[in-house]
Amino acid sequence: MTQRWKITVEYDGTPYAGWQMQKGVMTVQQALEEAIGKFSGEQVRVSASGRTDAGVHAVGQVAHFDLERESEPKNVRDAINAHLREHKIAVLAAEPAPPEFHSRFSAINRLYCYRITCGRYAPLRIDEHRSWHIKRDLDLAAMQAGAKHLVGTHDFTSFRASECQAKSPVRTVERVEVTEHEDTLRPGRQIELWVEARSFLHHQVRNFAGTLKLVGEGKWRPEDVKTALDARDRAEGGPTAPPHGLYFIRVDY
Amino acid sequence: MTQRWKITVEYDGTPYAGWQMQKGVMTVQQALEEAIGKFSGEQVRVSASGRTDAGVHAVGQVAHFDLERESEPKNVRDAINAHLREHKIAVLAAEPAPPEFHSRFSAINRLYCYRITCGRYAPLRIDEHRSWHIKRDLDLAAMQAGAKHLVGTHDFTSFRASECQAKSPVRTVERVEVTEHEDTLRPGRQIELWVEARSFLHHQVRNFAGTLKLVGEGKWRPEDVKTALDARDRAEGGPTAPPHGLYFIRVDY
Repeated sequence: MTQRWKITVEYDGTPYAGWQMQKGVMTVQQALEEAIGKFSGEQVRVSASGRTDAGVHAVGQVAHFDLERESEPKNVRDAINAHLREHKIAVLAAEPAPPEFHSRFSAINRLYCYRITCGRYAPLRIDEHRSWHIKRDLDLAAMQAGAKHLVGTHDFTSFRASECQAKSPVRTVERVEVTEHEDTLRPGRQIELWVEARSFLHHQVRNFAGTLKLVGEGKWRPEDVKTALDARDRAEGGPTAPPHGLYFIRVDY
Repeated sequence: MTQRWKITVEYDGTPYAGWQMQKGVMTVQQALEEAIGKFSGEQVRVSASGRTDAGVHAVGQVAHFDLERESEPKNVRDAINAHLREHKIAVLAAEPAPPEFHSRFSAINRLYCYRITCGRYAPLRIDEHRSWHIKRDLDLAAMQAGAKHLVGTHDFTSFRASECQAKSPVRTVERVEVTEHEDTLRPGRQIELWVEARSFLHHQVRNFAGTLKLVGEGKWRPEDVKTALDARDRAEGGPTAPPHGLYFIRVDY
């Protein structure tokens, strides 16, 4: 009897061409499908709650797949991890799920974090591919004021990638919070942008980050975020922040 | 006229065979000497405040070298960094120093941090080479109680590598603190061991970490740390913790 499995996955996105299978490059999906295939002997398709771009990290990506073979949840987790030793991917948990569970369509909430290290001139080394490095110091209060305009139900065309395939540009954003995070080890201020919604448009969080960085630098006033949003024109939104600052934190069902 | 320079250096120790120059492998010292040579045209010797082992990280290593060529501090920092682009090393600051300044002998205090991620079963991926992964949960209070026995002036033979070249095994340890550190992004409890002293024996912090991990696991009682210390016998101390959890944080002069 086929069993549907839900897995929670962490990955360092640096060496991958994103989540989705593509010819000639290694992706997170392919690495997982190969590892599951090796342990189970079955050829599976792994579906994620959301595709991540090349270089984007995840600490709580959720995916599902079906197995004929019966297994204990711990064994599924450990067996997949055993076949991921050469990869920067780990299965944190594996749970049996009902056949109607779908990692993407059953999701009711998603949380992303975008991390910026600022106020430090020298290049990042320990966090090189894990945080967006901005040399000048950013104005946290201004970023917080700008972020408020992005909360709520809006047409987010101004913050949507031109290649976005969603039918509607309207989304309900539950939270856009800018926090300062103490890093006990490394020099530089860590600023984190926390964004929560049921679903997102393509590049939406990275476009929020690129826009709020302009506010933090004083190049935009906080209210310019609202002007950009109201324009419903991608050309009026800020630039897309680089992928390596973005972390897919959690999905709720 | 020769100018002595003091530099503060960050590095991800993962790809290096430690600080010190060795034949056939890349070291932090060699990378820095090559970068300084390329920008200045001078062949320099770079001396560090303390040699770090292969895989050990630094966020505030201090080193010194002499240049004939006159330069502005910002230019020295940026020019070295420009020649370190292919490396996991960055100069955070460069300052002119008096001729008698010596990164090792002028130091009056050194601070190290040893980081452990515990209470998480799956392998670390994002922090794979940046934290020691212990699957079971550690008892923070027990580790704190054990750590107290390591503070003060003692003969630290039980926590000193057999190859240590220091004349005396006596050191004055100012602080051994075990803290719990919130990581907002990644699953798992982060425990940090902060150790401060004027100078250290070889592997001293890693041997402290390996010993306190046994206390955290309940394999040793906190007072067993004192018994091990009093034995003045390396065989009575705990094992050496792996290098990738160790960060050289700061040197004071």
